[in-house]
Amino acid sequence: MNDLETIFHPRSIALVGVSRKASNSGGGPDFLVGLTGRGFHEHRPLYLVNPNADEIAGLPCYPSLLDCPGPVDHVISLVPASVAPALVEQCGEKGVRSIHFFTAGFAESGEEAKAAAERDLIQGAREAGLRVIGPNCLGMYVPSDRISFNADFPEQSGPMFVLSQSGGNALSIIGGLGRRGARCSKGISFGNGRDINVPQLFEYAADDPESEIVVAYLEGIGDGRALFAALKHCAAKKPTIILKGGLSAGGAAAASSHTASLAGSAEVFDALCKQTGAMMVETLEELEDLVVALGTGARSVRGSEAKMLVTGGGYSVLAADAVARRGVTLPALTEPTRQTLRERIPVAGNSIRNPVDFSFVDDRDNAAGPIAEVMALAPEGDMLLITTPFVVRAQTSGSEASPEDHEGLTKRDQETLELLARLQRESERPVMVVDRGWSPMGGSESSPELLQAAYENGIGIYPSMERAARAVELLLTWRRRRGGLPEII
Amino acid sequence: MNDLETIFHPRSIALVGVSRKASNSGGGPDFLVGLTGRGFHEHRPLYLVNPNADEIAGLPCYPSLLDCPGPVDHVISLVPASVAPALVEQCGEKGVRSIHFFTAGFAESGEEAKAAAERDLIQGAREAGLRVIGPNCLGMYVPSDRISFNADFPEQSGPMFVLSQSGGNALSIIGGLGRRGARCSKGISFGNGRDINVPQLFEYAADDPESEIVVAYLEGIGDGRALFAALKHCAAKKPTIILKGGLSAGGAAAASSHTASLAGSAEVFDALCKQTGAMMVETLEELEDLVVALGTGARSVRGSEAKMLVTGGGYSVLAADAVARRGVTLPALTEPTRQTLRERIPVAGNSIRNPVDFSFVDDRDNAAGPIAEVMALAPEGDMLLITTPFVVRAQTSGSEASPEDHEGLTKRDQETLELLARLQRESERPVMVVDRGWSPMGGSESSPELLQAAYENGIGIYPSMERAARAVELLLTWRRRRGGLPEII
Repeated sequence: MNDLETIFHPRSIALVGVSRKASNSGGGPDFLVGLTGRGFHEHRPLYLVNPNADEIAGLPCYPSLLDCPGPVDHVISLVPASVAPALVEQCGEKGVRSIHFFTAGFAESGEEAKAAAERDLIQGAREAGLRVIGPNCLGMYVPSDRISFNADFPEQSGPMFVLSQSGGNALSIIGGLGRRGARCSKGISFGNGRDINVPQLFEYAADDPESEIVVAYLEGIGDGRALFAALKHCAAKKPTIILKGGLSAGGAAAASSHTASLAGSAEVFDALCKQTGAMMVETLEELEDLVVALGTGARSVRGSEAKMLVTGGGYSVLAADAVARRGVTLPALTEPTRQTLRERIPVAGNSIRNPVDFSFVDDRDNAAGPIAEVMALAPEGDMLLITTPFVVRAQTSGSEASPEDHEGLTKRDQETLELLARLQRESERPVMVVDRGWSPMGGSESSPELLQAAYENGIGIYPSMERAARAVELLLTWRRRRGGLPEII
Repeated sequence: MNDLETIFHPRSIALVGVSRKASNSGGGPDFLVGLTGRGFHEHRPLYLVNPNADEIAGLPCYPSLLDCPGPVDHVISLVPASVAPALVEQCGEKGVRSIHFFTAGFAESGEEAKAAAERDLIQGAREAGLRVIGPNCLGMYVPSDRISFNADFPEQSGPMFVLSQSGGNALSIIGGLGRRGARCSKGISFGNGRDINVPQLFEYAADDPESEIVVAYLEGIGDGRALFAALKHCAAKKPTIILKGGLSAGGAAAASSHTASLAGSAEVFDALCKQTGAMMVETLEELEDLVVALGTGARSVRGSEAKMLVTGGGYSVLAADAVARRGVTLPALTEPTRQTLRERIPVAGNSIRNPVDFSFVDDRDNAAGPIAEVMALAPEGDMLLITTPFVVRAQTSGSEASPEDHEGLTKRDQETLELLARLQRESERPVMVVDRGWSPMGGSESSPELLQAAYENGIGIYPSMERAARAVELLLTWRRRRGGLPEII
């Protein structure tokens, strides 16, 4: 545990350079709303610094950091780059422990003078005894301490530690995974990362008892040796997922403009992940799906053979092709399994091969559960991929809420989730749900309540068969590549 | 032109075996709603045949096909497979021209007795002078004639001809593309395709003056020689896109269960497309995006270098990586272009490299247009990939409707589309829009009105940078592979 622990838990915060404009959600990120919306100021001192305002959002403003009436642990800097050195000096005087520079306009500009200003700024901070987050970033998200740089992030804590050089991608990761049920211990957007950097954050996450899954969006590799050691430490203890931006020439140029990062090659990065036991993903979608898989029963998948239960013949053909692209194959069902299915599924319009299609069954809503049970408990395959229950759900979602419904879930949803959780437990193999309605072209999406309830029941819901299968492929590849490292899931 | 022309335009239809159950939308496909919802029966005779009902949905029922009081051109069969041969006999007696069997339970069951019954059925139909659609399918969608097998399909006609062995995938293709603005001349789901088959449909589409783009979902190859000749005829005249299901072992097994198709190998199919000049796609998403590209300015793309204009630094890095995976690269901007951009985009938090990121600009809403203009008209690159205007739109979508708004579009949306259409025209290179809000994880989607208006203005909207780039890659690959074939777009 390094001194980051105290930085993640400041006893007081000053927002310096905050303005009325920054306090409404129309413009850029809104630290004030993130803090006051969570009630940070009701429990710990929150000071606003703005020489041109008496109050903002009902809180008093002070003309300078030095005028704040109590000690300040952490400063969030919204001042222009030209004023940043003076603020650092004041921080030293005030005894501040850490400063987060939302302030940008340093090395990422590509201008040597601005890169030099950044070096001077960090040097000044060191001399003032200050740790620096950034510059050019959104800073900390610590739900247990009511600190958030976004008003929409979950209020609950969970086991996921998120580190991201990009603020926008931190928003996508924490927000997107939040909607799918995953919760954070801490998140940090650290931009150019000139002081608090990637290796330190991996070291911290490795030892943090609140964090069980580590998720990183990186642009630069920085000190390769330190990164290797920290990643090895972290990935040996906890599933550690890395999305590396800038692996293409265009992406590397963008990364240089974005966080002044030297991106490094895809080969080097892949080797780094392989040697340290980390998991590498290529897109935000893969990252999300893999976290969902790690947070649910899919984490224990041991092989690449799937049983698939769907409605829709054409869909079943393309779904089988899609999972095959990700290395997931569909074994033939044994005769006893087919026999049991034949008793429940008529011939016309259906199929009892794998994929099993039961589009045309009387009272399909009530037939779905027993058919899923036959499929899950049959001895074939390493997992069950299923679209059915939620297709049923979508079809009945127009119905009136019943008295047993609560928290946005229908009684049928609840029963379906309980059934799938039981089948996953009894079959000792993952049940993964694909929501066919989850189409970017419109149509029904799973409600946030359903996604979260499913996740909490250990059932991951994925947007497509291919994405579910890709999560399995990533898990299996990772397991195979870990060599002598300890089994951690 | 073969006799399919008359089949697509029946002067009267009988729905045989229609029941009350089939007339509400709770169960399977609803031909009755598809026909009455469009008012087919207000213009041409629509007969319902059901011996156990006097009327359904306000229309009289007749005890048998032979009791219908006028001539019947086309029959839609909803009867069980066991009754199908008797219905064919009656069709012969009644002078019916064509029959569509929604009826399933034939060769696709994998049972030899049922395959034999299908052969006998087709033989009987030939003897009765009947053409057969199916069995095991959803039949025809002809918007100009108010025939639809789905109540939600567009009512307007357009230049797209859709043929699909799968009814479900026909729904996905016509419905999904309908939401994105593309419209059909005709669509046909033909299932097992034992009489009216793939080659005949390609031949028809090739010569149909109402059809300019041909889109096919196929499972079986059938008579390879006939398919080759028909596809060559069609693809030489019109852009012809094929999604081939069953290219994996699992998918081929599913295709066999679904439409009794022998799927053939990926290599054979790829060679077929290459030699005939057709376009091959691997997923429904690729199919949709390619049709959108062909229906908008992107059709004329000539190279793989893109300018990219976005908001969001981390997004810009991953977007550059994503398009690179699809062969689209980002050339450096020339010094004059950078100079012009620098006048409009401040340093801090932004980038004037390619991708250009203007997250932090005063009054971004109004800055977006002029910056897009600079980017589009700059000499670099073969296309402009842009997220900006619709991000702006999403941010302002909560505002009150203004008096100038109409048809679900804000005045700003309309102005943005007009601007992009003008820039596409003046730059003589495609402008492709990526809607960052278009996320399966929630967030705003483009409204159907916006998607359609954009399409009609020649501007395609894509769900992600990678999908937009993939459409470009497919177009460029197709052009390169056409060899000596005529330039048709």
